[in-house]
Amino acid sequence: MAAAAKLLRGAARRPPALRLPAATGRRALGSAPPGVAAGGGSRRAALLAAAAGALGGLGLGLWRRQQQEAAAAASGEDEDEKEDEELRRRFMAPPVSGLRELRRRRRELRSRMELLIMETQAEVCRALAALDPGASFSVDTWERKEGGGGISCVLQDGQVFEKAGVNVSVVFGLLSEEAARQMRSRGKSLKAKDGKLPFCAMGVSSVIHPKNPHVPTMHFNYRYFEIEEADGNKQWWFGGGTDLTPTYLNEEDAVHFHKTLKEACDKHDLKLYPKYKKWCDDYFYIKHRGERRGIGGIFFDDVDSPSKEEVFQFVKSCAKAVVPCYIPIVKRHCHDSFTPEEKLWQQLRRGRYVEFNLVYDRGTKFGLLTPGSRIESILMSLPLTARWEYMHTPPESSKEAEILEVLRNPKDWVH
Amino acid sequence: MAAAAKLLRGAARRPPALRLPAATGRRALGSAPPGVAAGGGSRRAALLAAAAGALGGLGLGLWRRQQQEAAAAASGEDEDEKEDEELRRRFMAPPVSGLRELRRRRRELRSRMELLIMETQAEVCRALAALDPGASFSVDTWERKEGGGGISCVLQDGQVFEKAGVNVSVVFGLLSEEAARQMRSRGKSLKAKDGKLPFCAMGVSSVIHPKNPHVPTMHFNYRYFEIEEADGNKQWWFGGGTDLTPTYLNEEDAVHFHKTLKEACDKHDLKLYPKYKKWCDDYFYIKHRGERRGIGGIFFDDVDSPSKEEVFQFVKSCAKAVVPCYIPIVKRHCHDSFTPEEKLWQQLRRGRYVEFNLVYDRGTKFGLLTPGSRIESILMSLPLTARWEYMHTPPESSKEAEILEVLRNPKDWVH
Repeated sequence: MAAAAKLLRGAARRPPALRLPAATGRRALGSAPPGVAAGGGSRRAALLAAAAGALGGLGLGLWRRQQQEAAAAASGEDEDEKEDEELRRRFMAPPVSGLRELRRRRRELRSRMELLIMETQAEVCRALAALDPGASFSVDTWERKEGGGGISCVLQDGQVFEKAGVNVSVVFGLLSEEAARQMRSRGKSLKAKDGKLPFCAMGVSSVIHPKNPHVPTMHFNYRYFEIEEADGNKQWWFGGGTDLTPTYLNEEDAVHFHKTLKEACDKHDLKLYPKYKKWCDDYFYIKHRGERRGIGGIFFDDVDSPSKEEVFQFVKSCAKAVVPCYIPIVKRHCHDSFTPEEKLWQQLRRGRYVEFNLVYDRGTKFGLLTPGSRIESILMSLPLTARWEYMHTPPESSKEAEILEVLRNPKDWVH
Repeated sequence: MAAAAKLLRGAARRPPALRLPAATGRRALGSAPPGVAAGGGSRRAALLAAAAGALGGLGLGLWRRQQQEAAAAASGEDEDEKEDEELRRRFMAPPVSGLRELRRRRRELRSRMELLIMETQAEVCRALAALDPGASFSVDTWERKEGGGGISCVLQDGQVFEKAGVNVSVVFGLLSEEAARQMRSRGKSLKAKDGKLPFCAMGVSSVIHPKNPHVPTMHFNYRYFEIEEADGNKQWWFGGGTDLTPTYLNEEDAVHFHKTLKEACDKHDLKLYPKYKKWCDDYFYIKHRGERRGIGGIFFDDVDSPSKEEVFQFVKSCAKAVVPCYIPIVKRHCHDSFTPEEKLWQQLRRGRYVEFNLVYDRGTKFGLLTPGSRIESILMSLPLTARWEYMHTPPESSKEAEILEVLRNPKDWVH
């Protein structure tokens, strides 16, 4: 934690990242095989660094990071190495950009955000695994050939969790016009050159589907984007949110969940919780059903004010609130007894979850449209099992009708 | 059958439908409550007919049809009544446009198409019900407040079928720009006035999900569109197809299915089967998975040549081929034994079916975007149950890998 905190604070142990002028563009960089790069002399290395610069310094190829790490290791910086070792133990896997690279550009927000999402992934996975002792997270690291990669942690078919996924991804490259359209759908105007925009997107994203119908499904996602327009102007913004999808309504849980989120927001600005609570209710709306996916939480996107630092601190507070939001609810109900009818209702609600994610969710759509996306990580959000019955309508005044009422008419849980 | 055939032939027992000049537009028509309309005199009736004319004669409100049927019944046309009685017995429910109205405009293609889709629905439902004697179809008729309605026949949780739906819909009104964009996505340029286009769409649509993993899922859909542009020009086109989605590959079934479709196509033009077989393989492509939904069949859309009559006759042949395509396959395998592992693989394939339908299917998207659509009928295509496992990969040379290979690289089943 200390090492991560140090990196997160951006303690200046080294000069800031060197920026070389733009040169030949990234196609050459992307297509250079690792073997060739490793064998290159200093002129070649300079050229490659310059090529990366043409991308606006949005990231570096994995092969290049490995090369740098090898070189740095040889020069023997023992103290950094010790800190890195601690982070390696804490994190679920080595960060996509490499610890040395993150250290090199520690003052940059994208580095601090990458460390935050790694921390959050590790924290949440540890908290979940502690509740489901027989099960364990499978950890997959993957590379995206167009640039970047990710770490997918999935626990499947445990005692407590049916499917729990916590993913980190750090991807960069060129955004297709179609994907860009998805991103700017909230009014971001982006000036593309030849229909392509260099971008960098990173985030931690998680969906937890428990087995017991009395334990709600939880989702959170915190993300950061950088995008470079044709004129060299760089846009950046944050997005994210945490929301709860119960099968049955439990008011005490709903209040606890929203209250914890509100506290995280209130530390930064009292206007944030009401605004992002409403945004959440609006975003997770299954239009064709006339109901929300769940009982909400907070949701925000395209946030680029008041300042990069302030938004980052707010996002950090939200990410830190995930465990205290959700884990007490799981603990409270994971041993509750339930009937086959309650399990069936859970399965029907899982069907609705699938409908929202595949038809409306911007993150999913963006993922499916981004070339080289890791589909298994994107669709990890889908439940293990789901059900669709034709014309299923719960009886009036039933517990099933009670939650439907709240999904149709969102409530204020905290005043 | 004789009566339907007579109507389908368009035997001229009455003068063709009267066309009155356009007048006040359809909003008044749509908002006039049944009670008001029933009490209207002949001037009012003429006005309403004229209002319908403004829509390009694309259809009439249900309340108006009832009024006409009552009036016609009173005048006592016994022979027509006898024919109608026979159709009423054959069909799953009275046609949306009403038998008398269909008789009145019997020469028009939209009337003949409506009778064809009603016939097809009844034929398929009877054939399926005969194989699942303990189960029965629930029949729901529904009205769309913006214009038109439908008949949904669903058999759920039977011995043989997990979920089998056969829907007819006949809808008309004004198309939103977003829905129009979906329709013209294959290059149809439509000149809208104020972003709205009067349209009429009708079709029969069906998805059959059997219980036994050795019985494939089958889908078919035959549809007809009329759309009126701002300059009064009317565009029309047909679309449709029949396709098979097995859990496991059975070559004999695949050949039988494709051969029966080919025979139906070959009666009209030898070029049709190869063209529409390829279109089917292309259309049912789950891009993010790199695999097709099933082993194909035929698919076509936007077909408006060589002539309305010839395309209709082709569509009729295809619709008549549904039962001989599929029913023998169900009979052959519905009592096959299967293992829990085979059932599980079926459930994973059902998950893919959901992915295709919610992410890519144009019909589903069009339905979800059309205001007043009957969601339960559109989403009836989703299976009763589905499953998503993270990173599931069948072992090499397994039966599961065999079907995946065919889904990745479609085969020619008939030479």
